[in-house]
Amino acid sequence: MSKLVLVRHGQSEWNLANRFTGWWDVDLTAQGEAEARAAGDLLAEKGVLPTVAFTSLQTRAIRTLHFALEGCGRLWIPETKDWRLNERHYGGLTGLDKQQTRERHGDEQVHIWRRSFDVPPPELEPGSEFDLSTDPRYAGIDVPRTESLKLTIERVLPYWEETILPQLGKGETVIISAHGNSLRALVKHLSGISDEEITGLEIPTGQPIVYEFDGTQVAGERYYLKDA
Amino acid sequence: MSKLVLVRHGQSEWNLANRFTGWWDVDLTAQGEAEARAAGDLLAEKGVLPTVAFTSLQTRAIRTLHFALEGCGRLWIPETKDWRLNERHYGGLTGLDKQQTRERHGDEQVHIWRRSFDVPPPELEPGSEFDLSTDPRYAGIDVPRTESLKLTIERVLPYWEETILPQLGKGETVIISAHGNSLRALVKHLSGISDEEITGLEIPTGQPIVYEFDGTQVAGERYYLKDA
Repeated sequence: MSKLVLVRHGQSEWNLANRFTGWWDVDLTAQGEAEARAAGDLLAEKGVLPTVAFTSLQTRAIRTLHFALEGCGRLWIPETKDWRLNERHYGGLTGLDKQQTRERHGDEQVHIWRRSFDVPPPELEPGSEFDLSTDPRYAGIDVPRTESLKLTIERVLPYWEETILPQLGKGETVIISAHGNSLRALVKHLSGISDEEITGLEIPTGQPIVYEFDGTQVAGERYYLKDA
Repeated sequence: MSKLVLVRHGQSEWNLANRFTGWWDVDLTAQGEAEARAAGDLLAEKGVLPTVAFTSLQTRAIRTLHFALEGCGRLWIPETKDWRLNERHYGGLTGLDKQQTRERHGDEQVHIWRRSFDVPPPELEPGSEFDLSTDPRYAGIDVPRTESLKLTIERVLPYWEETILPQLGKGETVIISAHGNSLRALVKHLSGISDEEITGLEIPTGQPIVYEFDGTQVAGERYYLKDA
């Protein structure tokens, strides 16, 4: 049996400011750092010690991973970062205050953009201050201009199948530190959640979720490590 | 032209306590963290932005790397950790206070152990509290019981040749965050320093040293980034 641990990054500066973030690279708040440390302490307490780590190319997920690994004495394990674990790209909503966006576009439209499975927000305008297409971090990558959850899943799952799942097959204890929507993609796949239900599933920040595996097969339903 | 940046980890708890450390995994002090952050600020200021990172399996070097990369906005670059970049193993001296060791063994003997090129300190005794041979971090690795600088070089250089140098050949800006003696091994090799001289060469903590490369050939002498 091997274990998969999913951790959503702790509170970020724009979680706090209630702005759409997506691929924009904001850092953790002090509370976010504390959440990440607490995740590491919990891993240590429960004796779930990762042997291989994956994260996105975004600072808030990388730093969450580092704090969590420090907390359980595993900072030394191999770590792979990949854009396919990035947050869903919020397109033209990036940087907007969520309340202002509701006032401008109406509650219903914002609800559709946030909660629809396959309707992406408007595309990010070329030349936007939030345009990352020339960021060296994404050199060689076709940076999306917007993503629905469906599009997010379409880039997360191939990476999961090709790169992460084989590690579980080898018996590794895998930790993935990522984002609300890249983790929804995985939970949808692993727990067989419908398109309709997944958009409403909240993944709490800094709270390790565990799946057990028998080889490359999920063995049982996910649980919160704090309840283990 | 590509660049190699060497950074020795900032002050550790046992640097401060004046104890022989070697492979024992002590953390940075607050001053050590500040040194590492300052290294990152300097990289940003001078526009030397690493694209690939290497470090040891030891917390003080890994955390130094993370602080330095954070400081220059490069936390997202690929990072590889390898035991061959670890500090020299101090054998039976591990954990001893340097002053006490001098009093017990005499100044001259301690000077030989610290400054001889090829005389290793006494072996770590089996069952010592500092024995790391069953540490999961070193699973599959024949953990040394002691090392001279010569022995340290014999494991650093093959890793350099096989894994790090090809990255420079590809034009990457490589950062290595490591230790006094694993960095001495590299500086000896790259600057052609004699066996006699290298043992007296001090590598300051948290101070980025740069070599420029033309393909896989060193192009010119090393310099401190602060003087660039």
